[in-house]
Amino acid sequence: MPYIDLEEGVPGIRSLALYRPETGEHLYNLARVLLRGASTLSEGERELIGAYVSYRNNCVFCANSHAAAARCLYGDNEQLVDEVLRDMNAAHISDKLKALLNIAGKVQILGKEVKPEDVAAARAQGATDREIHDTVLIAATFSMFNRYVDGLATFTPTDDEAYAEMGKRMVEKNYQMPVKES
Amino acid sequence: MPYIDLEEGVPGIRSLALYRPETGEHLYNLARVLLRGASTLSEGERELIGAYVSYRNNCVFCANSHAAAARCLYGDNEQLVDEVLRDMNAAHISDKLKALLNIAGKVQILGKEVKPEDVAAARAQGATDREIHDTVLIAATFSMFNRYVDGLATFTPTDDEAYAEMGKRMVEKNYQMPVKES
Repeated sequence: MPYIDLEEGVPGIRSLALYRPETGEHLYNLARVLLRGASTLSEGERELIGAYVSYRNNCVFCANSHAAAARCLYGDNEQLVDEVLRDMNAAHISDKLKALLNIAGKVQILGKEVKPEDVAAARAQGATDREIHDTVLIAATFSMFNRYVDGLATFTPTDDEAYAEMGKRMVEKNYQMPVKES
Repeated sequence: MPYIDLEEGVPGIRSLALYRPETGEHLYNLARVLLRGASTLSEGERELIGAYVSYRNNCVFCANSHAAAARCLYGDNEQLVDEVLRDMNAAHISDKLKALLNIAGKVQILGKEVKPEDVAAARAQGATDREIHDTVLIAATFSMFNRYVDGLATFTPTDDEAYAEMGKRMVEKNYQMPVKES
């Protein structure tokens, strides 16, 4: 039961964007640029960073929905998503992505946890300034979304099918601001 | 020394907005709506919530700059800002603001830390849905900014005078997106 009067049956961040479109608009714009804008990180990798941070923040809605989006984007390799959430160091992903996920995990704890050696390890695997920047900002952004969604106790669906559909929509619609259904 | 190639001498979030204006634009827009938009919470109260969360996140740049902005806005009562940062329960602020700061402090830890009784306590002091919503989103947003600014080790001035000037500018300029000086 949400702590404030939100539209019934609308889950997570969508219910909050409908409640307060003045802020929701900028939140969706930020997510769209970060997760769908031009980048040398694939959309799947960026969704995976978001799912990873959300999982560590114990945010069921964000973790499940962004994991579902990442599965859609990884296609035939969708099992990688669960491998990363289970144990990213053992997952069959590139060493560069592991180094970026390590940075994201530090940001999830607190900004100052990111040490020069974490950044150096990512650079050693070929990560660029922009990739390091975007990894930090994606992790910081999900640290915000997770707190926003759970701090107001928004509606969190519990069945896998709902998240699978959500993931598909997130890939097709690319974070367009939700519109109230009449 | 920042972890990526940022403009020298430009502090904190400003250096990041100049580095990546595509995301900086939405971050500044979000801050402007939340901290300066129409609200039944005063601008001083909102800056204080931001400073309080940043202080708890040990983000020197955000805590000092938003505390400075709050001091400007509180004017003759500027000592309240330091009272809140020292011990908000003992500060000479309203019980409503204390209840909202309590919620912000829970969000700073993690979204799920906000319990129905925290929200009920704020309502008992007259807090509205919108005020509770905005408090949670301000706290979540600063949890992002703090991680972003520290996670990339941005330039953090150390003298009080620099922050006093910054606070004044934040009150005068209302979070306009920074422009590169030529």
